[in-house]
Amino acid sequence: MSILVQKYGGSSVASPEKIRAVARRIARAKEHHEQVVVVVSAMGKTTDELLGLARQLSKEPSPRELDMLIATGEQQSSALLVMALLEIGCPAISLTGAQSGIVSSGVHTKAEILDIDPTRVVQELDRGKVVVVAGFQGVNGNNDITTLGRGGSDISAVALAVTLGAPVCEIYTDVEGVYTADPRLVPRARLLGEISYEEMQELANLGAKVLHPRSIEFAQKFNIVLHVRSSFGQAGGTLVKGAGDLEKKRVVSGVACDLDTAKAVVLGVPDEPGVAQRVFLALAEANINIDMIIQSMMRKDRNDIAFTVEEGDLPRVIEIMDRVAAELGAEGVAHDANVAKISIVGAGMISHPGTAATMFGALGDAGINIEMISTSEIKISCLIQEADAKRAVEAIHERFHLDS
Amino acid sequence: MSILVQKYGGSSVASPEKIRAVARRIARAKEHHEQVVVVVSAMGKTTDELLGLARQLSKEPSPRELDMLIATGEQQSSALLVMALLEIGCPAISLTGAQSGIVSSGVHTKAEILDIDPTRVVQELDRGKVVVVAGFQGVNGNNDITTLGRGGSDISAVALAVTLGAPVCEIYTDVEGVYTADPRLVPRARLLGEISYEEMQELANLGAKVLHPRSIEFAQKFNIVLHVRSSFGQAGGTLVKGAGDLEKKRVVSGVACDLDTAKAVVLGVPDEPGVAQRVFLALAEANINIDMIIQSMMRKDRNDIAFTVEEGDLPRVIEIMDRVAAELGAEGVAHDANVAKISIVGAGMISHPGTAATMFGALGDAGINIEMISTSEIKISCLIQEADAKRAVEAIHERFHLDS
Repeated sequence: MSILVQKYGGSSVASPEKIRAVARRIARAKEHHEQVVVVVSAMGKTTDELLGLARQLSKEPSPRELDMLIATGEQQSSALLVMALLEIGCPAISLTGAQSGIVSSGVHTKAEILDIDPTRVVQELDRGKVVVVAGFQGVNGNNDITTLGRGGSDISAVALAVTLGAPVCEIYTDVEGVYTADPRLVPRARLLGEISYEEMQELANLGAKVLHPRSIEFAQKFNIVLHVRSSFGQAGGTLVKGAGDLEKKRVVSGVACDLDTAKAVVLGVPDEPGVAQRVFLALAEANINIDMIIQSMMRKDRNDIAFTVEEGDLPRVIEIMDRVAAELGAEGVAHDANVAKISIVGAGMISHPGTAATMFGALGDAGINIEMISTSEIKISCLIQEADAKRAVEAIHERFHLDS
Repeated sequence: MSILVQKYGGSSVASPEKIRAVARRIARAKEHHEQVVVVVSAMGKTTDELLGLARQLSKEPSPRELDMLIATGEQQSSALLVMALLEIGCPAISLTGAQSGIVSSGVHTKAEILDIDPTRVVQELDRGKVVVVAGFQGVNGNNDITTLGRGGSDISAVALAVTLGAPVCEIYTDVEGVYTADPRLVPRARLLGEISYEEMQELANLGAKVLHPRSIEFAQKFNIVLHVRSSFGQAGGTLVKGAGDLEKKRVVSGVACDLDTAKAVVLGVPDEPGVAQRVFLALAEANINIDMIIQSMMRKDRNDIAFTVEEGDLPRVIEIMDRVAAELGAEGVAHDANVAKISIVGAGMISHPGTAATMFGALGDAGINIEMISTSEIKISCLIQEADAKRAVEAIHERFHLDS
């Protein structure tokens, strides 16, 4: 039984015309596969428009109600896509996350898929229908609609591929695949034919919007090949798969740039045991993800604790930190949303000493100041001012000869 | 335990500003009632916009997918209204039709409510929350989303009032209440302080958009008072309730005008037993509602069968009638969408002979041709050309002195 899972992003279904094009592509896929499951995101800017409405009604909208609101975007696009499929004679049915049996955790706006009961999906597939699942959403134990966070449709798609035993999950988007850098920043960026899960994971964590980090983790865990392709052309795209398959490990596969980051600093924290824990426990309790962390001793008995978060979380972070700073007897809280995180990623980096030095050199020669640094086995990240971001990516891309 | 059910129509929640005004009104109601349930329609033109998208993708969109699509409008407005309520400190939660336990028949786009399991609604009410239910929708036995047809939010509201034991259901709309005629057609139309279920039922059936016919039937059956009010002012509105309570039965309470009607005629049908049944059985099987029917013998052995349907059903009606006419050996099918149904309604009509003659006289004096006539105990309807509609309503309104 040959089964294929495809996911189409919001830009792929942004207009009735594009929805029709996607429907034709799905109908062609159905000729080659007995069963086709399609996961679809909301049309174009729908989610942003709904968020805009919400913000007109509430400075900090209830997460449960936000989920109720924005989950409608995918419900709409899935129904419209099925209408287009039926119009060209391709039997199909749309299902919400709940109808697809996607059971999630109870955390609104950032839920995780806990389980999928594929009964209904399988039933409809067995009837010969293409099943179009509203991405990005599930239902929690309380029967409330949850969403999986930005890019969550990727997670829906991979989770369905795992549940249904599909070996490949095609991710259709508005770019040709994964590049050595964002082509809008670096015109000479090169398309990668394949990339390892680990590298893609780092790139995704670093702001490459093409795939959701958790979808890659999921795919890696269950060995699902992710095929990132353009929904507008026939180009080959990029295969994301196990590193063992890759010919040789590149030192640096790509440069990433994340503008959706903000820095917060708790100033003059007393140098006592347990202080850092109190800072980060308070953030964890508010379900805020921390990225980079630096603790620096500025003078005797007083430390600065700096960290980065998603820019959207900054207002809540400031509120929480003001409280924690007061409790700890710290001197204050500073923050900066105009920062960017520039990173290089490469599976071969670990065996090539000097990679970090090369990156710092590229930035230094371009006169760009580095505010924070963090590293992993296959990545090096530098926090810089947002205004320098484009120049930084170009300088690093050139220094590592990524265009050739 | 004092419980109130309110329903807000699409025009009442057409913008963030209006949603905020509705939220304030609900918060005030919560001060006077221990429990408040609110049913809300989709924002302004949302449903029409979604239908427009659907029609761009399919000439005749799948009813199941249409329901999946348009049910999102109410889901959005309910979530947005709850955000506005929370913002002013009024605890609230939004629920979809499915979450509210509204179980419907399986007929898509025209479903009927079969049952309501109020467990979740009661649970949230007991927590002190205003429960905002997405109107117009339910879920059928197959766990598919269904919608209740245009104006279906009224039905949701009355059904919830019945289930929860609320004596009154407030219907908020963009007009002050029920008038003797559409004030846009007749500027001198007068607001009625109260009206019987029966009269309101006829008016609603006749195109008065202020209440859904089935919601009135429902309210009458369970003796729920419907209070039709403007969501923009503090005016008293119109009470729809049992005729026994009304001081005296007016001969004519109002004039209605329904432009959403179309005429079809099966021409030259053989004059044999069972012919009419075959015509209307075919329409019933397609779930098409018939309104007026006239069978006239034009010449020996041949009849014309004329009837009216909702204008939106006309394309399907023509298709079905072409088939039936061929099977019956009829001479052809004619149709006309440019017709209007003008009706007078009044509980006292039954004891006042000559009411019909007065109406026909008003139309005749205005030089307006009557194409079809139908009557019930408390109503008289005439089908005329759409272009004459406004003049017809004005002439009848004046002839029966409805402005005084």
